[in-house]
Amino acid sequence: MKKINYIDDIDKWQKEFTFSIPITPRFQETDMFGHVNNTAAFIYFEEARIQYLKKAGLFLELTDKTKPIPIVADLQCDYHKQIFFGDLLQLYVKLHYIGTTSFDIHYLVKNQDDQLCITGRGRMVQINPQSGKPTPFSEEMKKSLSKL
Amino acid sequence: MKKINYIDDIDKWQKEFTFSIPITPRFQETDMFGHVNNTAAFIYFEEARIQYLKKAGLFLELTDKTKPIPIVADLQCDYHKQIFFGDLLQLYVKLHYIGTTSFDIHYLVKNQDDQLCITGRGRMVQINPQSGKPTPFSEEMKKSLSKL
Amino acid sequence: MKKINYIDDIDKWQKEFTFSIPITPRFQETDMFGHVNNTAAFIYFEEARIQYLKKAGLFLELTDKTKPIPIVADLQCDYHKQIFFGDLLQLYVKLHYIGTTSFDIHYLVKNQDDQLCITGRGRMVQINPQSGKPTPFSEEMKKSLSKL
Amino acid sequence: MKKINYIDDIDKWQKEFTFSIPITPRFQETDMFGHVNNTAAFIYFEEARIQYLKKAGLFLELTDKTKPIPIVADLQCDYHKQIFFGDLLQLYVKLHYIGTTSFDIHYLVKNQDDQLCITGRGRMVQINPQSGKPTPFSEEMKKSLSKL
Repeated sequence: MKKINYIDDIDKWQKEFTFSIPITPRFQETDMFGHVNNTAAFIYFEEARIQYLKKAGLFLELTDKTKPIPIVADLQCDYHKQIFFGDLLQLYVKLHYIGTTSFDIHYLVKNQDDQLCITGRGRMVQINPQSGKPTPFSEEMKKSLSKL
Repeated sequence: MKKINYIDDIDKWQKEFTFSIPITPRFQETDMFGHVNNTAAFIYFEEARIQYLKKAGLFLELTDKTKPIPIVADLQCDYHKQIFFGDLLQLYVKLHYIGTTSFDIHYLVKNQDDQLCITGRGRMVQINPQSGKPTPFSEEMKKSLSKL
Repeated sequence: MKKINYIDDIDKWQKEFTFSIPITPRFQETDMFGHVNNTAAFIYFEEARIQYLKKAGLFLELTDKTKPIPIVADLQCDYHKQIFFGDLLQLYVKLHYIGTTSFDIHYLVKNQDDQLCITGRGRMVQINPQSGKPTPFSEEMKKSLSKL
Repeated sequence: MKKINYIDDIDKWQKEFTFSIPITPRFQETDMFGHVNNTAAFIYFEEARIQYLKKAGLFLELTDKTKPIPIVADLQCDYHKQIFFGDLLQLYVKLHYIGTTSFDIHYLVKNQDDQLCITGRGRMVQINPQSGKPTPFSEEMKKSLSKL
């Protein structure tokens, strides 16, 4: 496998994932090249990330507009193997790092034959929805995230 | 052309459109059958409808949660000619009917060769966002819509 | 419920569905109105329709470019209840009619509380992929479809 | 602005872009957070990249299955400013690097107020569609790409 700047040891890295959800690609997510379009990777990352954050009690329905919310600051994705319509994917997510106002999530996508299709990472920053400024996590939030 | 239940005379029907916007299909909107996916028709309808309603002053940014909003009650679409990546479309919209709490919009999609690709229609109902109940249009709104 | 031109008796109509698949709305399918966008209905119809046709052995991977393929001729959709992120949907499909070169499929979408969210229908026409002309179903295909 | 690992001097970097296309976000690309969903960045990258490769004569319609094609090997995206429905975007693309079988493209998204919304980069690898193996660019292709 090619060298990826956010993975040191691919075997060790893979073993650290404990949370995952199944994803079935939609026909509408294929493109005229005959496979699932590259943009779908980020749709799948988002689905897995939200379920992960929900489990930590950190996904808000935005009903309370004063509460801080985590937003996507950057995303990165490496394509290792094409995904096709009919594939049954497993989306793995893990917390890689947590700081004062932001955290890094790593992503792994495998197909039904346990083949590694996509790897990725991305930073989330917690902001105040009114000011748009980064806001420190509470100790409780840090604990919730670290426990996953 | 096959018989369509919302079109009496196709030539007359086509001539009644006076509002249109250009749409460029995205690569992501193609599918593995090599053409633009059938679901994109409704994405294009929505783009044209919103620009049409904006012109009539009826598209709200939902900042004022007490104001009535128009929602989609039904949609209907007939596919006459496949759309491909690289096509440059023109999306035509017209008001077909306006009642007390709802109106009907007709849609026409043509390609760069002036070929009829898609026809459609759909009803919008004005509702109170809090109660979800149909709300009569003001005389001013009716005028704005009828003038287009 | 409002009158729908493809449903005579809603209770009878609902009971006739025997095939369904679960669908989880994606976050990316929501829109700024806070609910699942109206265009997602047709993405879900397509998922259910393909699984239905696969069961009848009629969904081809297009590897054999000489075999006839079913394409979407028209689609119709009625929105009864908004769908939100977090809803777990069940997509029902049934064959309503089969002719010489085309068939009609009916659609029903229910949420986790067994509430009727969307109803729909659409015609598929079998065409020769080279000529684009309608092609009669074989007796075998008719049987496969009718058995579902 | 935060430090980005593919940009040394942001002013110099911005000035190097000479190719761009306009993009109008679709309503369907917004999400329930009220802005354009993060996955849309990659849809816009793709639109701009294809127009850029078309200009260099490198985007194939896949009619000739024996010709090498460029595929996406990785993508990276930094979000600087939220994008909203109604924004009119300009998508900038430039060639950053070209090797024997791959090249790197950089992306810049600005809104109607000339504000930097998104930056990004990604590697494309030219492969043989049959074998899936990397294939060297011809001298002609290299020239076409370098001239843009």
